[in-house]
Amino acid sequence: MENEKMPTATTTMEKIVSLAKRRGFIFQSSEIYGGLNSCWDYGPLGVELKNNVKQAWWRRMIQGREDMVGQDSSILMHPKVWEASGHLEGFTDPLVDCKKCKQRFRADHLTTPNCPECGGELTEARNFNLMFKTFMGPVEDQGAQVYLRPETAQGIFVNFQNVLTTTRKKLPFGVGQIGKSFRNEITPGNFTFRTREFEQMEIEYFVKPGTDEEYYQHWIEERYNWYKEMGLSPERLRLRPHDPEELAHYAKACIDIEYFFPMGWSELEGIANRTDFDLKRHSEYSGNKMDYFDHETNEHYTPYVIEPSAGADRATLAFLIDAYHEEPDKDETRVVLRFRPELAPIKVAVLPLSRKEPLIAMAKELGQELRRHWNTEYDDAKSIGRRYRRQDEVGTPFCVTVDFQSPEERTVTVRERDTMDQTRIAVDELVPFLREKLG
Amino acid sequence: MENEKMPTATTTMEKIVSLAKRRGFIFQSSEIYGGLNSCWDYGPLGVELKNNVKQAWWRRMIQGREDMVGQDSSILMHPKVWEASGHLEGFTDPLVDCKKCKQRFRADHLTTPNCPECGGELTEARNFNLMFKTFMGPVEDQGAQVYLRPETAQGIFVNFQNVLTTTRKKLPFGVGQIGKSFRNEITPGNFTFRTREFEQMEIEYFVKPGTDEEYYQHWIEERYNWYKEMGLSPERLRLRPHDPEELAHYAKACIDIEYFFPMGWSELEGIANRTDFDLKRHSEYSGNKMDYFDHETNEHYTPYVIEPSAGADRATLAFLIDAYHEEPDKDETRVVLRFRPELAPIKVAVLPLSRKEPLIAMAKELGQELRRHWNTEYDDAKSIGRRYRRQDEVGTPFCVTVDFQSPEERTVTVRERDTMDQTRIAVDELVPFLREKLG
Repeated sequence: MENEKMPTATTTMEKIVSLAKRRGFIFQSSEIYGGLNSCWDYGPLGVELKNNVKQAWWRRMIQGREDMVGQDSSILMHPKVWEASGHLEGFTDPLVDCKKCKQRFRADHLTTPNCPECGGELTEARNFNLMFKTFMGPVEDQGAQVYLRPETAQGIFVNFQNVLTTTRKKLPFGVGQIGKSFRNEITPGNFTFRTREFEQMEIEYFVKPGTDEEYYQHWIEERYNWYKEMGLSPERLRLRPHDPEELAHYAKACIDIEYFFPMGWSELEGIANRTDFDLKRHSEYSGNKMDYFDHETNEHYTPYVIEPSAGADRATLAFLIDAYHEEPDKDETRVVLRFRPELAPIKVAVLPLSRKEPLIAMAKELGQELRRHWNTEYDDAKSIGRRYRRQDEVGTPFCVTVDFQSPEERTVTVRERDTMDQTRIAVDELVPFLREKLG
Repeated sequence: MENEKMPTATTTMEKIVSLAKRRGFIFQSSEIYGGLNSCWDYGPLGVELKNNVKQAWWRRMIQGREDMVGQDSSILMHPKVWEASGHLEGFTDPLVDCKKCKQRFRADHLTTPNCPECGGELTEARNFNLMFKTFMGPVEDQGAQVYLRPETAQGIFVNFQNVLTTTRKKLPFGVGQIGKSFRNEITPGNFTFRTREFEQMEIEYFVKPGTDEEYYQHWIEERYNWYKEMGLSPERLRLRPHDPEELAHYAKACIDIEYFFPMGWSELEGIANRTDFDLKRHSEYSGNKMDYFDHETNEHYTPYVIEPSAGADRATLAFLIDAYHEEPDKDETRVVLRFRPELAPIKVAVLPLSRKEPLIAMAKELGQELRRHWNTEYDDAKSIGRRYRRQDEVGTPFCVTVDFQSPEERTVTVRERDTMDQTRIAVDELVPFLREKLG
């Protein structure tokens, strides 16, 4: 790291948290009750941004590739799944308690043998499982104990034969899924970066053993390029291969795609070569065959798996942070989110220059028409300059202004967010004009 | 009911379950481990169908209306939320145990005073809360006990002031949200109709008190028409107003939109007039004002709420069932899912007439081009007739066949699912042709 050129953060986390709250991207969960540690709600703009991220991933990674299909498995799964996957046994953090002040710490984060708070004596370390448990059905006993999934991946492995049979896919092919997972993290933090409830975008890509290293490289490139094409600055993106001692028990190789967040380089996505570990374990624990018959070579074998596992919340946060720009603008500062149009929560804003008729009626009508194609906002409050700034601050690519010439001439001006150029165009040409720019 | 004309079910639940499993719409969760009661996974076609249902709802109800915004709140919320909402106290089923055989039953479902299984004596009824509970953070004590939300609605109520401030909306306006909820139902069943983990599409529409009855009617019509326009047969749709004794404690009026499922009339969506109950309770329990300042009348008041609450899984199941048609076809039966194109999981299939070149290369290339616009399947296995049937059975609106004339003429035939008409068109006209039909 010392020799590496450090990139510049676009802004501070404080500014992002403040903008997110002020403009309705992200609120603290249950805020009126003092909040719930590490849980967050996406507000009106946040939900559109996050949905755009998820849809862009789905369209490109699932629908855009002949060798991919999607699925959506349930959060509650049979407890045997977590025995087979190793999560019941190994998915733990070592915890110690202070005998004096009763506080609890992660043993592997301590730098002194005594309590960092009061200096008291600590207990032996005990393992704490990161899975949330709950009880299904009306009886609270061991038999009914189930877990909230800590990853969506296992839902793909257990459905391997079902997907293979129903889609008649041949290797190599992959299954992708977007959904919530839950981990009882001891130290959540950094806004929506590390939370106990989070959403994943995971792919399990099944390949013939021996071709796994080639597809591992393929997916590293594919996923790195996706972040770049969706707008993240290449100088704030890097690949960090795991050291051998960092590797999970199931992995032959793993690499992180990292983004330079305000708190430093942090993981956006991990790409792992999981070998045949999971399919073999599920075969062993369930007694069901999890192998593949290769018609070309006439052999049965257990596929290897390449897993690109991305965090939807982290990706959303990175797109929000990377889009953030401040520019001097006379005596003020212009804040603008330079989202790719595909990710922008609002695509078009319709702004009547004055609250007089017939401008309002024309603007409302235009808003209604544009809304059939894109997420559109109508705003007639305050000065036009302030309204442009409000749209810049949430990354709206186009503002359509209805001015005094508009009703008679049937024209409007279209202002572009990044250049601030304004073009007068005929109302009839507005939809085709925007379609070309927005897709 | 006796006097009502009973509609005809399109098919039986057995046939739907079988088709869903055979073609990859819906699998049993954790099937290789014997399944997990009442949990289901959406397979490659099911996830596309359900996503299309959710996106159609979002585009029309949220993005398509100036008076609506969306949000996405977390599943884990502060436990005080459920005290205020009444769920901790009142969201219960009365249960009895048999003292002899130890089985458990819902007291309100029993028709005899003794155990329906063995005739043994039953205990007094005890209330069983339907919320799933779990523990957050590393300490399992009362303080850290949280619940999986039993409805998404409360996430909207607790964010009322945040959404109001950030969007600057004026009454009437609404907030919609799609997300998972969990209820520890005693008697789940009927495939994906009643499950313990399920997905909701909920709207909370805030209005000035006194205008609530008018907007209650508005939403009944709006939601009923949505199901009709999305393809459900009007003869299998009906409205069922709740009797006064059926009303929840918070509701002034409630009506169900019901669909005639194979098991009979059952609820798709409930539309309730929740009055100011929820906002007032949250104000009381949190100490935060939850009212609205009306600039026109210069008064502060607590809005009334109209709640159209739909089940995404139920809607998906109803669209699947209603699309199901069987038709005689020579000696066989042609099964066809007549989805609206908007809902169809696959929009276009590309089928080379033979596995010879240059047909395969042309079909693959065409598939890749169409995939940029729509979810597209490529299939070259078995006879063309069987491939058409396979696409009919999953509701694909268009099959594009690459035949022996195709490479030289640069033409293909397009077969339409419902009429089975085939039209030969130029390859260059294919995308515009399909865009007009598919949107």
